[in-house]
Amino acid sequence: MIKVFMNPKPREAYQRKLECFFNDYEFVYEEDRDAEVIIGSVKPEQIREFRNLKWFQSYAVGVDAYTKKGVLPEGVILCNAPHVHSREVAEHAFASILSAVKKLHLYRDDQHQNRWKDEGPVKEFSRLRVCIVGFGDIGNILAKMLKGLNMHVIGVKRTMSEKPDYLDELYLKEDLYKAISDVDVVVSILPGAGENVHLFTLDTFKKMRKDTIFVNVGRGNLYSEETLRKVLDEHIIETFVSDVYEKEPLDPESELWRYDNLVITPHVAGGYHLESAYEAFIDLCIENLTRYKEGRKLLNVVEERFDR
Amino acid sequence: MIKVFMNPKPREAYQRKLECFFNDYEFVYEEDRDAEVIIGSVKPEQIREFRNLKWFQSYAVGVDAYTKKGVLPEGVILCNAPHVHSREVAEHAFASILSAVKKLHLYRDDQHQNRWKDEGPVKEFSRLRVCIVGFGDIGNILAKMLKGLNMHVIGVKRTMSEKPDYLDELYLKEDLYKAISDVDVVVSILPGAGENVHLFTLDTFKKMRKDTIFVNVGRGNLYSEETLRKVLDEHIIETFVSDVYEKEPLDPESELWRYDNLVITPHVAGGYHLESAYEAFIDLCIENLTRYKEGRKLLNVVEERFDR
Repeated sequence: MIKVFMNPKPREAYQRKLECFFNDYEFVYEEDRDAEVIIGSVKPEQIREFRNLKWFQSYAVGVDAYTKKGVLPEGVILCNAPHVHSREVAEHAFASILSAVKKLHLYRDDQHQNRWKDEGPVKEFSRLRVCIVGFGDIGNILAKMLKGLNMHVIGVKRTMSEKPDYLDELYLKEDLYKAISDVDVVVSILPGAGENVHLFTLDTFKKMRKDTIFVNVGRGNLYSEETLRKVLDEHIIETFVSDVYEKEPLDPESELWRYDNLVITPHVAGGYHLESAYEAFIDLCIENLTRYKEGRKLLNVVEERFDR
Repeated sequence: MIKVFMNPKPREAYQRKLECFFNDYEFVYEEDRDAEVIIGSVKPEQIREFRNLKWFQSYAVGVDAYTKKGVLPEGVILCNAPHVHSREVAEHAFASILSAVKKLHLYRDDQHQNRWKDEGPVKEFSRLRVCIVGFGDIGNILAKMLKGLNMHVIGVKRTMSEKPDYLDELYLKEDLYKAISDVDVVVSILPGAGENVHLFTLDTFKKMRKDTIFVNVGRGNLYSEETLRKVLDEHIIETFVSDVYEKEPLDPESELWRYDNLVITPHVAGGYHLESAYEAFIDLCIENLTRYKEGRKLLNVVEERFDR
């Protein structure tokens, strides 16, 4: 029997599902240092205490904390969980876009002030032009939803591929400025990889129209906090919607909270807020547990570790 | 030349459009008491000062203020402008639903408190069941948008008709309780006509699930303010989203502003917040101005006036 420590403990239905699938694994839900497999999450500083560990299946996409030298013992396989969060991030972005277009955040502010105030004209969905920067898994789901409302949808990605039907235009990253220069909404779903750090400068935002809504559900280091504050202070664009920040969590003393042209959500677009995301994670675990016991190559192995 | 007083003055492009269409009308945009036709809005107490008035084309749907005895001189034709607002109301309702489902109003509240807080799980669009009470023009547009996200959509209307493809279930008003008893979202688009006044009692809301989101873009007299406050105080349902109120505007001293489980917008779902709504109104005016000069029956004549 191979011992698998699952943390956090899944709901009972999922426990039963896993136990029904496998006879060769013993699933434990309280910390057990003898575990050969960890599924979910364990603090980086504690992971070396699992002496028999051979495989760590993280529930996250970003596993930077575990790829640093000295965190995982050599030989331990590390897997992450991409894709399972795509739908929840796309849905959060979609709702955030529509809410900002209809100025619902301003009406909530007015409510806090006991203020009955008409915030003026709003744009019609079918007349919106939206540019998705970082057009991958999430971008595809989001584009389909936007196209369902007859919006004009533009994608920007690193390498060219065939343009899907639900996209009106597809650009390479070199043409970013062209893609974002005449749209109502820019959505960033760019990951926090090296080349994207501070990719957006004040100049990038100045390339957008003044009535643009910018939505960031990618990574908060896409621009510096200095740039962000300049964009907000100088009203370079109309509304800034952000789920991610250069330093998280935001400090209670942060100046960012007070901006009415900044809509803050606390990195909740992903993170298993949808039940189906967890279901997809369990399915990934079932696939990888099957492969592991058969000695086959696992899915989503993170190879580039120990490099920092 | 028939003198037409347009109030408020439309944008220049619309003025040109009307003037290009018609040689037989003189359009004036400053108050002129000699006008034979008024298009748009004039205060009920001032309308009798227009001695030559023969036709008043209101830009509103609800024209109760003009159907009261003594407001309009006998023989003056009154027309309203239904349908032109349907898309804007449907879009406002749609954005309000998605925003509430993703708890965006709570995150805005947290922002006001400098609070980085995860508000917990949210529901997936494709797993939502939505019931639209008052399934007319607006309801049809809204249902199509909801179905585009693969929701289960239920309609409730007064008289039976064929169920459109984008609706999963259609009920008569007699079966209201059945229709609203097991859904995630109830949307009311009911007009404020007699039979709907205080149609929803505390009992009606108790028939809904505790996790239901209720959205009212119909009329605020669907329930008493006492019922509304009980629903909010006792947390009968999860979130109450309202664009309309029994007494409008809400008083700055109203107790309603302070509820975090009530999302307030100040009767802005309709009211020409979309450019296309005004375009549709101008198209209606062109049609009716053509009919008027040819002596044909006008569209949207409100017959039941002087009855109160």
